[in-house]
Amino acid sequence: VVTLGAEWSVAYLGRVITVCVPSEEARTGIGEVDGARIVVWDGSGAPPEDAREAVLLLDRYMADPWPLTALEALPQLRVVQLLSAGVDRWLPRLAELRASGRDITLCNGRGVHGPSTAAIAVAGLLALVRELPFFVREQAASRWTPEQSDGVDGKNLLVLGAGDIGSRIAASLEALGATPTLVARTARDGVHGIDELPALLPTAHLLAIALPLTDETRGLVDAKFLAALPDGAVLSNIARGPIVDTDALVAECRAGRLRAHLDVTDPEPLPQDHPLWTAPGVLITPHVGGGTTGWVDRGFALVRAQIERIVAGDPLVNVVGERY
Amino acid sequence: VVTLGAEWSVAYLGRVITVCVPSEEARTGIGEVDGARIVVWDGSGAPPEDAREAVLLLDRYMADPWPLTALEALPQLRVVQLLSAGVDRWLPRLAELRASGRDITLCNGRGVHGPSTAAIAVAGLLALVRELPFFVREQAASRWTPEQSDGVDGKNLLVLGAGDIGSRIAASLEALGATPTLVARTARDGVHGIDELPALLPTAHLLAIALPLTDETRGLVDAKFLAALPDGAVLSNIARGPIVDTDALVAECRAGRLRAHLDVTDPEPLPQDHPLWTAPGVLITPHVGGGTTGWVDRGFALVRAQIERIVAGDPLVNVVGERY
Repeated sequence: VVTLGAEWSVAYLGRVITVCVPSEEARTGIGEVDGARIVVWDGSGAPPEDAREAVLLLDRYMADPWPLTALEALPQLRVVQLLSAGVDRWLPRLAELRASGRDITLCNGRGVHGPSTAAIAVAGLLALVRELPFFVREQAASRWTPEQSDGVDGKNLLVLGAGDIGSRIAASLEALGATPTLVARTARDGVHGIDELPALLPTAHLLAIALPLTDETRGLVDAKFLAALPDGAVLSNIARGPIVDTDALVAECRAGRLRAHLDVTDPEPLPQDHPLWTAPGVLITPHVGGGTTGWVDRGFALVRAQIERIVAGDPLVNVVGERY
Repeated sequence: VVTLGAEWSVAYLGRVITVCVPSEEARTGIGEVDGARIVVWDGSGAPPEDAREAVLLLDRYMADPWPLTALEALPQLRVVQLLSAGVDRWLPRLAELRASGRDITLCNGRGVHGPSTAAIAVAGLLALVRELPFFVREQAASRWTPEQSDGVDGKNLLVLGAGDIGSRIAASLEALGATPTLVARTARDGVHGIDELPALLPTAHLLAIALPLTDETRGLVDAKFLAALPDGAVLSNIARGPIVDTDALVAECRAGRLRAHLDVTDPEPLPQDHPLWTAPGVLITPHVGGGTTGWVDRGFALVRAQIERIVAGDPLVNVVGERY
């Protein structure tokens, strides 16, 4: 939580603020908020007159960031609210805005997708370790084939990313007997720093990737990283595809040394002829981690609460820090 | 933990006790224990002379219980140790022994299979809720089909059975945003009694069955029980098949009202022409919950520790209570 309260108070307290949202669905979903006027504009063409005063802009989920010209048409804009946890798509645009002297705060959708994104990682890791794809195929043939599988109990679980998503993955699998270790960009109490990875990777039977995509994490999981994992390790990437070197991962899976659940890929969507589809030990869920039924309602509830904070002069939540 | 310490002390302290195990593999796995002599007999034919003094008998995992004649050939027998969590197979035999005046203590394999059995329940529930069988099929066709699924966050999870397995299922899914409620045969702090089910079932989006099979639980999950669940509920049975009325479950799944993960079935194994194989929304893992790699070592470690307790005059663990 970053305190912008005092400043907001001076600027907006007692005024009706304008919020720009990309669809009627969003306006309806957010509902009426005392002290705020919600107008619809999707960033194409000229903004409607009543959008020009917009202080907060709600992003279009999973679309390209708004063009710079559209953002320049909103001179009062102070906050861009995303519904995704990752903000990587918006970082170049934000840099452009800031370079032109605009003071824009970026807020992400932390909490909107956390439980469901963590769940797809746990689902993917358990599915691979417990051979669910095999049992699905055996069931299709009406075959009772009780083959012994490996388990997650007694295994070391390394979680890259110690935010809401990573912490939930760790807690969920710890309850099933795994021993989690959290890693984040900087070490803190109970969390190892990313510089400690060389010592941690050789004993990581399970690996979950829940890091934001940044210059620092792009390509982090490369051939050398993967080679440091023990034989039989199982990983899940539910963050962003480009954190993992796809070719290196395909090679390890084809060699039968590693297995991988991928909710995100590079490229994405995965073209039909891509080798990941058929690499042994790969389970693909097509970027469905955060998008469960009900996430839209959670997203609109977050936006509504943010608008109420601005109206009340309270600090915003989910502010993306400068280090991101 | 039931304290048999004082009695054991009087009877066995300072003596070398005899333990009967069903295979050389078991003898090797348990290893040498000071104060104990471990002999191998599988219950067929006449017992070897040195087995007749056996105080503890290790059961053959997942096989029929030993015939009464074999048990009568072990007049010193005081403890039957199972490697399974469920003891239903042994209950009739135990009743026969007790009816004939034998004082036999039954110990189960609690802890040997707990984490892995809990994991298959979590895997099965997550797989169904997050549509993994669909994505496995789409992957086989190299198709990127990001269809929205339901999530477990915000859902009520009812766990029948509040032992090691049930508690782990609850904790694992709570970390992913579900709200668990534990139910056991008798209410206690934090655990609802089975008599409260009528009030709990109508709001149970997720249901995990982790109860022992007893006269009380056989057929518990019948047509009326299932009808009380809300539309779209997803259940997992990782306990014993006969707790669920198979025909009633097939009817609910065919109607598209419920979905079910079954690690155990009735009958078991499931014959090739059984309707469960093809019922929509059914995911079958063929009784593989507890049998993960490494469970045998955990089992032998438990047996070894039990033998050491008898030698030391310490109370046994995993004693199955009279109420079972």
